[in-house]
Amino acid sequence: MKGYVFHGPGQASWQDVPDPDIKEPTDAIVKVGAVTICGTDLHILKGDVPEVHSGTVLGHEAVGEIVEVGSDVRTVRPGDRVLVSCITSCGRCRFCREASYGQCQGGGGWTLGHLIDGTQAEYVRVPYADLSVHALPAAVRDEDAVLLADIFPTSYEVGVLKGCVRPGDTVAVVGAGPIGLAAIATARLLAPERIIVVDLAPARLEAARRFGADAVADGREAPAQLVADLTDGLGADVVIEAVGVPESFELCTRIVRPGGHVANVGVHGKPVTLHLEDLWSKNVTITTGLVDTYSTPTLLRMAAAGRLPTGQLVTHTFPLDQMEEAYDVFSRAADTGALKVVLGGEQHELAVPTA
Amino acid sequence: MKGYVFHGPGQASWQDVPDPDIKEPTDAIVKVGAVTICGTDLHILKGDVPEVHSGTVLGHEAVGEIVEVGSDVRTVRPGDRVLVSCITSCGRCRFCREASYGQCQGGGGWTLGHLIDGTQAEYVRVPYADLSVHALPAAVRDEDAVLLADIFPTSYEVGVLKGCVRPGDTVAVVGAGPIGLAAIATARLLAPERIIVVDLAPARLEAARRFGADAVADGREAPAQLVADLTDGLGADVVIEAVGVPESFELCTRIVRPGGHVANVGVHGKPVTLHLEDLWSKNVTITTGLVDTYSTPTLLRMAAAGRLPTGQLVTHTFPLDQMEEAYDVFSRAADTGALKVVLGGEQHELAVPTA
Repeated sequence: MKGYVFHGPGQASWQDVPDPDIKEPTDAIVKVGAVTICGTDLHILKGDVPEVHSGTVLGHEAVGEIVEVGSDVRTVRPGDRVLVSCITSCGRCRFCREASYGQCQGGGGWTLGHLIDGTQAEYVRVPYADLSVHALPAAVRDEDAVLLADIFPTSYEVGVLKGCVRPGDTVAVVGAGPIGLAAIATARLLAPERIIVVDLAPARLEAARRFGADAVADGREAPAQLVADLTDGLGADVVIEAVGVPESFELCTRIVRPGGHVANVGVHGKPVTLHLEDLWSKNVTITTGLVDTYSTPTLLRMAAAGRLPTGQLVTHTFPLDQMEEAYDVFSRAADTGALKVVLGGEQHELAVPTA
Repeated sequence: MKGYVFHGPGQASWQDVPDPDIKEPTDAIVKVGAVTICGTDLHILKGDVPEVHSGTVLGHEAVGEIVEVGSDVRTVRPGDRVLVSCITSCGRCRFCREASYGQCQGGGGWTLGHLIDGTQAEYVRVPYADLSVHALPAAVRDEDAVLLADIFPTSYEVGVLKGCVRPGDTVAVVGAGPIGLAAIATARLLAPERIIVVDLAPARLEAARRFGADAVADGREAPAQLVADLTDGLGADVVIEAVGVPESFELCTRIVRPGGHVANVGVHGKPVTLHLEDLWSKNVTITTGLVDTYSTPTLLRMAAAGRLPTGQLVTHTFPLDQMEEAYDVFSRAADTGALKVVLGGEQHELAVPTA
């Protein structure tokens, strides 16, 4: 089969690789129907995620069809259309027992396209299939479902729920890329009074407005003042960091109110400065997190009911075999306006080779 | 009357000051029976708390007798023996309504010995007396009660409760000064599996053992390794920062397990480095806080029942008029072995001048 293989920093190619096969009785093999590219994949290509070995097939988000299952798999069978979650989980370790699947100590967690071959390929082996794939409602299209593999549960769990958004809150979202936009969409489910969004790119601030931001600010133009003006000088109840650089994190800690929450979602490659000399007495809560995907079944029901604007995030679609072109468009998002790119899916399904 | 007056960094004296009087109908005047010195008072003397003006009477922890109340005070009257809390609160603002009294926007919060004259004097004016003093059970001695004005609720609320200590947890306490020791004592109420304490001073580690630490580590000798060894390499469920310097905070973030809590209690004067490049995916929660004192009534009941080792913290007692000697002993804790010093109290009550 073909797959998108990492060859060390700056190098990857769509090339022939061996077909995956069942290694453990809990595995399933999924024929990939639609797949997307994550900002984290770009981090890997930059060399920011050193545990990814050369030769690994990238990708951790997909929709597809089960073609084979191991002898212990009980909940899905060949022919089922499924969502492949970015998190696989053993279900048995102390972390899984507390629904912290992202921290699975039994060989799960974020493994696909990271520690084992991932989803940017024609087929993918998914460990612990019973807990790691989700049968898809017919009402949810591939192009929508694939956004529930990672970014919607990430924004919702790590941003909105860890941030403890409550009705009537002022929520600030710093960063209006796909994660920030999904945070806006899922924060709205909890009826905040207003959502204020900060970014540097006018096109992303426009997208934030479409997703439901009530106010937007250019990050270079006194965003803290806008937040103060809208909150009687107090600051936001919840601030969601959706960028992953020191400047954005530090802005978050400046615009949170006393007693408020800063929920970090961004993937960071460097330390940040935490101004505890100001914050020690402010009763702030700062959280970090890898998604656990415990919310995925709920979000799938919401998507099936038409209550999540998943499709609005997809700006570009490609056939699966145009992986290199898709990476090029996604990595030049500032020029191309790309939010999420989807490969395969119904529009391009004929381009997916059959087994 | 006499009071201990701040005259700018490095300068303070026990001297004549005007008697306080009722300024608002919600005020009470308390004749101080016992008072203590807080590490925060030393920070003020060093000039770390610039909002404290020269001329302010220091101190925010006391026990005494109500001698006069304003016309709106309903819950205490002259003759009542009361605890003067370090936090005063209006009870009406949005923060007080959510029990965040420390963040009171109605002129309360930490004001005594900070923004207004404090308790290190023969008399003190306490604003918002109905919410800011607590009638004392007869069973609780002055020398025990005064430790509930600040450090016990601080350690309990900002350390133990914000850190979400649960039965069976491994709790690490970094810093075994009075706040760290009170954190050990109050963490034990929640039945952790073990408490590991880190400090640099052998005498403080011995005190930690007496307060209930199950393991202790010298901060210079691989404390992170001890925590790892005791937790199968995972780290502590809850880490309580009770020092207030960058090194101790950074140690806390290295020894917390994935999904764990770091509760900062220390008063910081400098920024710290937060290693988000390691922590972004670890599901950690970091909290800061000024005490709210919502737990004070509960802790008073626990003290009356003999379930808090308050008295064990008091290493030195003085008559009230030996304030300068007491500051000297407390500020040289490394030499004197001082944990908490108490002035006044039953042992020295004759030394307190009468009105």
